[in-house]
Amino acid sequence: MDVERIPPRSGTAFRVPAGATLTVIDPEGAQVADLLAFSADDVDEVISSGRTIDYAESIRLTTGNALFSNRSRKMLTIIEDTVGCHDFLLTPCSTDTFLHFYPDKPVHRGCFGNLAEALKPYGIGSDRIPVAFNCFMNVPVDDATGKLRVEPPLSKPGDHIAFRAEMDLIIGLTACSAYASNGGSFKPIDYRID
Amino acid sequence: MDVERIPPRSGTAFRVPAGATLTVIDPEGAQVADLLAFSADDVDEVISSGRTIDYAESIRLTTGNALFSNRSRKMLTIIEDTVGCHDFLLTPCSTDTFLHFYPDKPVHRGCFGNLAEALKPYGIGSDRIPVAFNCFMNVPVDDATGKLRVEPPLSKPGDHIAFRAEMDLIIGLTACSAYASNGGSFKPIDYRID
Repeated sequence: MDVERIPPRSGTAFRVPAGATLTVIDPEGAQVADLLAFSADDVDEVISSGRTIDYAESIRLTTGNALFSNRSRKMLTIIEDTVGCHDFLLTPCSTDTFLHFYPDKPVHRGCFGNLAEALKPYGIGSDRIPVAFNCFMNVPVDDATGKLRVEPPLSKPGDHIAFRAEMDLIIGLTACSAYASNGGSFKPIDYRID
Repeated sequence: MDVERIPPRSGTAFRVPAGATLTVIDPEGAQVADLLAFSADDVDEVISSGRTIDYAESIRLTTGNALFSNRSRKMLTIIEDTVGCHDFLLTPCSTDTFLHFYPDKPVHRGCFGNLAEALKPYGIGSDRIPVAFNCFMNVPVDDATGKLRVEPPLSKPGDHIAFRAEMDLIIGLTACSAYASNGGSFKPIDYRID
C-alpha cells in the first residue's frame, strides 16, 4: 500500500493481518507515535508492557524483540529499527496529563483522546487503553534514583521501525500531541502496511 | 483489624474503604506481594503503572507518591515505607512465565492465576489484570542497556509499606509464587486494614 499520513496531534486505527509488515515512519524527525495493538479476534487481548518487559528482560525494545499481549502471546515482532530508542513505560498523553504538565498551555485531548475516538468503531473503550509502545519516544531512566526524563526523540527524518504482525490485529497509532515528547514541535507520522 | 496472613504462593482480594490504611507486611523478609487496585464503584477503573510513572516522573515509588488509575485519579497514596524498593514494571507471574523462565521446574499458576481466582467474585476477569505494584520486588534497571534483573528483595522481617485508600477499592494481593522474585524461597505475606 501507499504511505498513509497521520496529521500532527491526531490518531487513527486500522486492521493489520497476520504476516503483514507495519512500518511506522517519522517523516520530519523527532516525533513520537503511540502504538496500541488489540487482537482482531477478541479485543480483550491487548498489548502488555509488563509481559513484554518481563520476557525481554529489558525496558529497551528493538529489532528481534516481540511485543506480547496480556495473554502472553506474541502480537508484533520488531523486524527493523533505524532508531533503537523507544518508550514502553508511559500511557498516552491525555486531557489530565496536559492539565498536570502544561497548566499554562491550551488543553488537548492528547494521544489518549485521539486513540479513544479512533478505536471506538472497533468496540474498544477508553478504559482499555494501556501503556502504549511509544515509537521514537526518548525516556532515559536514572537507575540510582529511578527518575525519568522525557527528551526529544533521536529519530531523524525518514527513520522508521517495522513490525511483523503475529496475529490479526487492530492497531491504534498517533502523531503525538504532547509538548515534551517531541521537543515542542508537532509533526505528522507516516505508516505503511505491506 | 487483626493482621491477616496470605499463605505462600497464594492470593486474596478484599475491599478497602476510602480513608482506610492498608499495610502490607513482609513477616519473614525477602518476599514479594503483587498488589492490584480497582475502583469498587466501577471495576473498569484500575491501577495504571503508566499513569503513575508519568506523574511521578520516576519508576521508584515510595512515601508520598500516589498510585493513579487509568482515569488519572489517585487510588492509593504511600504513607509509610520501610524498604523503599518496589517494582511497577512487571505483570504478575503466570503459567506462561513459569514455562518461559523455569522450564525445568513444576509449573504454577502464579500470582496471575491466584489474582484471577480471587478477583472473579468481584466481576473482574483475568484479561483485566494489568502491571501490578509489586511490593518489595527488587528490579534494578541498567539505563545504558535497558536490561533489568530480578534480585532478592531488600525487605527484612517485619518491613512494611502502608497505603491510604483515596477511593473505595477492591484490592488483589499475593504472596508471590515465582522463584526469582523472592530468592527461591516461598514465604507468606501479612496485611492489615486500619
